[in-house]
Amino acid sequence: MEEKELYDVILELLRAKKGAALKKELSEQEPADIAAVLLELWDDHELSEEDLPIVFRILPKELAAEVFAEMDSDLTEALIKSFSDKELKSVMNEMFIDDAVDLIEEMPANVVSRILASVDPATRRTINQILDYPDDSAGSIMTTEYVALKPNMTVAEAFDVIRKTGVDKETIYTCYVTDAERHLIGIVSAKDLMLAKQDDTVSDIMEENVVFVTTVDDQEEVANDLRKYNFLAIPVVDKEGRLVGIVTVDDAMDVLQEEATEDIEKMAAITPSDRAYVRTGVFETYAKRIPWLLLLMISATFTGIIISNYENALAAQVVLTAFIPMLMDTAGNCGSQASVTVIRSLSLDEIEFSDIFKVIFKELRVALLCGVTLAVANFAKMMLVDRMLLHNTALTPLVAGVVCLTLVVVVFFAKFVGCTLPMIAKKLGFDPAVMASPFITTIVDAISLIVYFRFASLMLSL
Amino acid sequence: MEEKELYDVILELLRAKKGAALKKELSEQEPADIAAVLLELWDDHELSEEDLPIVFRILPKELAAEVFAEMDSDLTEALIKSFSDKELKSVMNEMFIDDAVDLIEEMPANVVSRILASVDPATRRTINQILDYPDDSAGSIMTTEYVALKPNMTVAEAFDVIRKTGVDKETIYTCYVTDAERHLIGIVSAKDLMLAKQDDTVSDIMEENVVFVTTVDDQEEVANDLRKYNFLAIPVVDKEGRLVGIVTVDDAMDVLQEEATEDIEKMAAITPSDRAYVRTGVFETYAKRIPWLLLLMISATFTGIIISNYENALAAQVVLTAFIPMLMDTAGNCGSQASVTVIRSLSLDEIEFSDIFKVIFKELRVALLCGVTLAVANFAKMMLVDRMLLHNTALTPLVAGVVCLTLVVVVFFAKFVGCTLPMIAKKLGFDPAVMASPFITTIVDAISLIVYFRFASLMLSL
Repeated sequence: MEEKELYDVILELLRAKKGAALKKELSEQEPADIAAVLLELWDDHELSEEDLPIVFRILPKELAAEVFAEMDSDLTEALIKSFSDKELKSVMNEMFIDDAVDLIEEMPANVVSRILASVDPATRRTINQILDYPDDSAGSIMTTEYVALKPNMTVAEAFDVIRKTGVDKETIYTCYVTDAERHLIGIVSAKDLMLAKQDDTVSDIMEENVVFVTTVDDQEEVANDLRKYNFLAIPVVDKEGRLVGIVTVDDAMDVLQEEATEDIEKMAAITPSDRAYVRTGVFETYAKRIPWLLLLMISATFTGIIISNYENALAAQVVLTAFIPMLMDTAGNCGSQASVTVIRSLSLDEIEFSDIFKVIFKELRVALLCGVTLAVANFAKMMLVDRMLLHNTALTPLVAGVVCLTLVVVVFFAKFVGCTLPMIAKKLGFDPAVMASPFITTIVDAISLIVYFRFASLMLSL
Repeated sequence: MEEKELYDVILELLRAKKGAALKKELSEQEPADIAAVLLELWDDHELSEEDLPIVFRILPKELAAEVFAEMDSDLTEALIKSFSDKELKSVMNEMFIDDAVDLIEEMPANVVSRILASVDPATRRTINQILDYPDDSAGSIMTTEYVALKPNMTVAEAFDVIRKTGVDKETIYTCYVTDAERHLIGIVSAKDLMLAKQDDTVSDIMEENVVFVTTVDDQEEVANDLRKYNFLAIPVVDKEGRLVGIVTVDDAMDVLQEEATEDIEKMAAITPSDRAYVRTGVFETYAKRIPWLLLLMISATFTGIIISNYENALAAQVVLTAFIPMLMDTAGNCGSQASVTVIRSLSLDEIEFSDIFKVIFKELRVALLCGVTLAVANFAKMMLVDRMLLHNTALTPLVAGVVCLTLVVVVFFAKFVGCTLPMIAKKLGFDPAVMASPFITTIVDAISLIVYFRFASLMLSL
């Protein structure tokens, strides 16, 4: 069913107060769809703070916990406030650790203390450990609910373990084999177990060359590993090589989407936000954008200073002014083509700093081709359209020559700056995405103007 | 082992011609790592066209097919040319259908006909069917190798089916229940099967409310569904509701990464490419960039025409020229902040066309805050730095007023154009990502200049 349709159905049942029908309808839906529709109803003021817990209580227990984990933080906060301690405890017990941690990270302090009070001491300890890992590290996104097997178990015994504990595990399809000290010594997939003989031991069929990550590894690298190796989960070990958790593919996908969104935001000079655009308030949106606008505005005044220095030249040849925007825009576009390509390649792990000379050499050859093409096209356009068609007599072939020569040179500079800055930023430990279009544009603008006026001064003897 | 380390080890074993040690080393590695290292050796001319098939023949059969599927097309093409018909047949039989289709799409025609001749007629028919689906559709990325169960089977019988056919299936963790006409009537996870009683029937435990996609659905939507619902695979049905294939989560992850890269490239005015940056030649890179640069250069000449029209005003007040770059850059940055945010929200399915008024209302409020902040900051900077510190006497408070008033108005225009154009593009069936920064910048530049010169004419009586 389409989301719109589901929205209408649920709204109608809500208004008619048909609890049984509502329960039947909701039970057949995916948790993510229920969460999305509840959020829309909430935003449209069709679901009051009193109705929300009523709808929630209708859901079967397991589905309720899944919906809860998928919900927007505005809704979960309202729900928790309406929950009795017993209800909160029940939902928290059904949730996976990693979802519980996500929830806690989004809630205000008073709600967090209620949540932590509602879980048993062992879970609380685990949650606090995960919360202690650095932001965006493997440790901070992992879950501790994996199937652990021992090497001397038979396949039949392994199945028993899975049957007994599997319900509460985030995945049962990759099982982890650990020794007495919890060191990770192998993995077995459920497929291997199913295809093996019942009396084989786990150590017979386990894969010993295990790809793993450590708790402090960056979440983007972890997600890239899952993607590269086509894994359903990847084990996370601590400094001593002991297994402490796993990251599953569904979380890895979310990480990749978030990281791509963050890169895109940074490339457009916006401080990244965890919240979806539609869920972000006007003031918060403003706060994410204005620092960059101010910074870039201030740096753009350098270009103004350059122009002021050449005011006399400009006053003598006003025709030159008309080409400033075109030169600046073209240089900016060339620079951002190079920078964005390099930034994306860096974050996909396709290139690294040691490739810098290869990248520069390539960009300079591309720049030569682009620069010459643009210059030729522009010269033809200036002569045919501006001069012959529009009778702009101030635009002599010499002036056109200045403009086109400038184009070639600034395209070179733009591609060079565009490809080197992000790589140097990465090397120095900064985020390369911040070195994208807006910054490159500001730098390249200044270079363009200086080159332009130098050529103009020399060739037109200003 | 790090890739660099693996590279050195393999290179050493290759040079010393230690076949047995090489086999041992490679057998312990992930297919993706082997493929990556072989590509690097190939690029560094350490692996000749004669060595490549020798290394490949060393690999165990199943691993060889996996490495083959992960390889860059340059390598696979060289390998296929060196393969005997028997070898090609053996590798193709081990490959999953979706990987075979990917391979065929990348190979030149003569290689394709050899590949198709090497597979059995039934596989060839399936491959041809998949090749017939539109580019970037669910049908074009699906695989036909799924586990199909019947509703009246017992759990024990279902396990038998999985054990017998599972080796050749892309996933055995989600099984699909079909009726006699192959209509999809339910799904059962391997987890459900393991936790069920042996004599339960499949229809007892299957989930009947199945989320599915159709063969013609866009691959990005399919991947977003897998992410949203945390699925490991999603079924693909034809127009008659018959199950024809599945899309697995590993392919969905690749789709999301590719689509994000494409969006980023389009936002930077680059025609997207299927090949990684480092694998793309200079001329190809040039060809992906130059059309946009030319188009944007031509459209930037409109701003030149606007400036030409106000040449006399500029000649009278040369101080105005110095602020053109700052105004254009700031407007461009404001516009791309809005457009990039909206484009990303559109591709994450967070907003749709019907939200356009909500989005505009929000952007205009953000614009008001941003515009006023920028204007105040700029006025203060002009008076304190430019006028008092740098003694720029031409910069009267009235001129500063013109610049700052222009700022407020163009920020409004920029945010408005930035948020509406991508949404309208999407509505009209164009790709919203193309409406990103460079286009918005060109439009916003022209608006900025007109507003600037109108205000200047009115307030400074030029």
